[in-house]
This record gives sequence, structure tokens and C-alpha cells, in this order.
Amino acid sequence: MPRKPKGPVLNQLVLERLMHYFHLVGEQIPDNANGWVSSAHIAQLLAMDDTLVRKDLASIGVRGRPRVGFSIAELKGRIREVLGFNEIYKAIIVGAGRLGGAIVSYSGFAKYGLYVVALFDADTSRAGEVMGGVLVQPIDNLESVINRHDIHMAIITVPAEAAQAMADRLVDAGIRAIWNFAPTSLVVPQGVFVRHEHISVGLAELAYYLKRNNLTTTDWPSESWRPGQPLESTAEEG
Amino acid sequence: MPRKPKGPVLNQLVLERLMHYFHLVGEQIPDNANGWVSSAHIAQLLAMDDTLVRKDLASIGVRGRPRVGFSIAELKGRIREVLGFNEIYKAIIVGAGRLGGAIVSYSGFAKYGLYVVALFDADTSRAGEVMGGVLVQPIDNLESVINRHDIHMAIITVPAEAAQAMADRLVDAGIRAIWNFAPTSLVVPQGVFVRHEHISVGLAELAYYLKRNNLTTTDWPSESWRPGQPLESTAEEG
Repeated sequence: MPRKPKGPVLNQLVLERLMHYFHLVGEQIPDNANGWVSSAHIAQLLAMDDTLVRKDLASIGVRGRPRVGFSIAELKGRIREVLGFNEIYKAIIVGAGRLGGAIVSYSGFAKYGLYVVALFDADTSRAGEVMGGVLVQPIDNLESVINRHDIHMAIITVPAEAAQAMADRLVDAGIRAIWNFAPTSLVVPQGVFVRHEHISVGLAELAYYLKRNNLTTTDWPSESWRPGQPLESTAEEG
Repeated sequence: MPRKPKGPVLNQLVLERLMHYFHLVGEQIPDNANGWVSSAHIAQLLAMDDTLVRKDLASIGVRGRPRVGFSIAELKGRIREVLGFNEIYKAIIVGAGRLGGAIVSYSGFAKYGLYVVALFDADTSRAGEVMGGVLVQPIDNLESVINRHDIHMAIITVPAEAAQAMADRLVDAGIRAIWNFAPTSLVVPQGVFVRHEHISVGLAELAYYLKRNNLTTTDWPSESWRPGQPLESTAEEG
């Protein structure tokens, strides 16, 4: 019998903010905080409103004490619990290119409970390589590995034009959650969750900042230069 | 004399949503929309509230027509204009590892006005390699390249422990906007903008989904397995 879902239902923005609080108290604050932190301090470091910080923390049952603030240990423990970081979820990566390699080599995922079990590539000549300690396997092994290890999560790092067909195949094989790094949208059936990582989303903020501060240009670097062409040639540096 | 900043002041969340609208009308909607799209359609595809869609678009001066919706051409054009995608901003990447390589190889940035001019690595033996059409240069060239090409933006893909020192050096060299992919926070002076890409933020949503749907486990895959150790060995597949 399936267990009942437990705990509050939280939307994407709350979940992302909880992750930011988790990073903050894990990386920045503990050095100078003797175990307590105020919502004002969190809000200041994250450039947000402290009412929202308190509301987010209250939504997961973390309440501060007047004039003391929030217990860092409680805050971290509760976020770990709500987001499921105390449990284990195994994932595979499909696409052993540079991005797939960067993700599998990232050593920070274990603290969130994520373990990359296998890496697949459509190019069979890649099979047998090891990236980030994980074996690259031929794509034909996909279904058997998913099945053997009872895997529900897949990370897609294939080119955009191959992503939808791969998502269909993953869903057919039993995948229920997809972390999509291919720069395209995916259509999946009800009951499958997709998180799109559009790497370019961050550019909105950067481009806007540069534009507002007159740090962009409307001139090409030179008459002969065209977008995509490197400005720095080997000759120039030789 | 510096030009005056122009246009509305928009916060991070609005900017990110504008980017999502821009992707949506660029990639998904045009096929079946004959030039118009409703806020309800956008809201449905992005799983958000259509009042917020209308508010965001109104904030950049895009207003819909009753029973017709929004002009896709106007929407795209106005987002391009507000976010500065019609202008050019040049960037360098520091760190020619897998992630730096994946970013420099991404062909989609030109449509946002971003051009990667040079790639640097602390490992001088890497100098002379070409990744994504861009030359890897020794880190000693950093200041001269920034100066020569009047570059204001840098993308950091060095390891976490090297990121702050690199940020300091970039700021000293005149960099005003940093896109930080190193998994650590950076401290920069007033007047320098940092966008942190914490790759793990997306995991909050995925882990939460898996947990609520009982797709996590609390058991290790086997007695002998330890986190970080691949489940799939060469032997097993041989």
C-alpha cells in the first residue's frame, strides 16, 4: 500500500527559496552566528523581504524566538526533512557530453540524497569510458539499468533535437522525474514531473544589468567580426 | 556623459519570468497561434496564474486586446528590447573544465546578445586548445584581454575554492557583472552584479516530488555500496 504524501504542499518558488536558505546557513552564516540566525540577516544576505523569509519558514513549521531568531540546526534539519534530502534517490544521466560530464563530476549532490548510478550515450564508441567515477554505457542498456536499480529520475543532457524522443523512452521505461538540461521544452504524460534548467534564464538578469548601466554596445567589435567568431585568434596571441 | 538608465526597473523574479515567456513564444507557441497568444494560454503552459502574466507584460508596456490576446511579435520584440538582447555584450569564461567547455559550446547565447570572446585556464598546459571555437588562453592574459576588448562580464567556472580570488581579480580588471557557476557565494564590491547559478536549486523541486510520491528509498542499494561509488561497474556490464 503506498504511503500517504506527508508534510505541506509547497510551490516551486518556495522550494527554491528553501534551497537558498539551506545553502546560506550551510555555507555562509555558521562562521559568525553561534547557532542562531535572524530572518533579517537571511533576508539581507539574499536581498529579499524578511516577512517572506518568516512566512517560508513558518510554512515548514520553523518558528523563531523573539530577539534570538531561528535555530540554524533546526532550520537545516527541517529543510532536509521536507525536501527529502535525508532519503536516497538514484538517477541516471543521458548524454555523456561536456554538460553530462560536468554534472556527473559534481561532488555536491550526495548531500541532497542524489546518487548518479549510470551515464548513457548514443555514441556506442563512448561506452566503457568513466566520467566522474561513473561508467558510460551504450544507450541500449537504458531500460535494463532503470529496471534493475529501480530508478525513477533521469537527467537529460542530450542535444535539443534528441531530447523529446529520449524523454518518451525514459517515461516508457518507468522514469517519473526528469531534470532537463537540453535547451528545449518537453511534453510528458500526467504523473511525470519535469524540471527545465534553461541555462539562459540567468542571462535575463545579467543582460538587463549591463544594459541599464550602459555596459553593452551596439557596435560590432570590428568590420569583419561576426557573431560566433572568436575575437581572440591563435595568431593574435602567438 | 553616461546615458541615463531607461525603461522600468524590474526585479529578479520578473526578469526570469520574462525570459520564460520569451522562450515559450519563441519555441512552443508560434506553430499554432497565427500571431496571437492569450495570457491564459501562457499561464497554462507555464503552470502559473494568468493575472501575474498580464501584470508582468503590463510592466513592460505590452497590453493585450480583448478576445484576441497579445501580439507575439510585440511581446518578443519588447522583451528583447527591455532585457537588452538587441545589444551586444561580450564575456570571458574563466575555467576551461567540462562546465566551461559546455557553456562556451552552447550555440544559443548569440540570440540574447552574448558573445564569449575568450576562455582562460590556470593550467597553462591547456593554452592553445580550442573549445566551442574559442581559444583557451593562459590566465596571465586575463587583464590584457579584458582591457583590449572592453569586456564587462565574466563567467566563472573554476572550482569553488578558487572562485573568490578569481572574482577579486576580475573586479580589479574592470569586470562589472559575474555569472558564477562555482558552487559557492562570492563577495563583490558595490556596483558589481553577481548572478549565482546554484545547479542544485533545481534539486529542491525534484527531490520534493520524488519524496511526496514515495519514489525515494531509505535503504542503500547494497550492503557494500557507499555514496559516490558507482552502482554499475565495468565488470557487471562486461
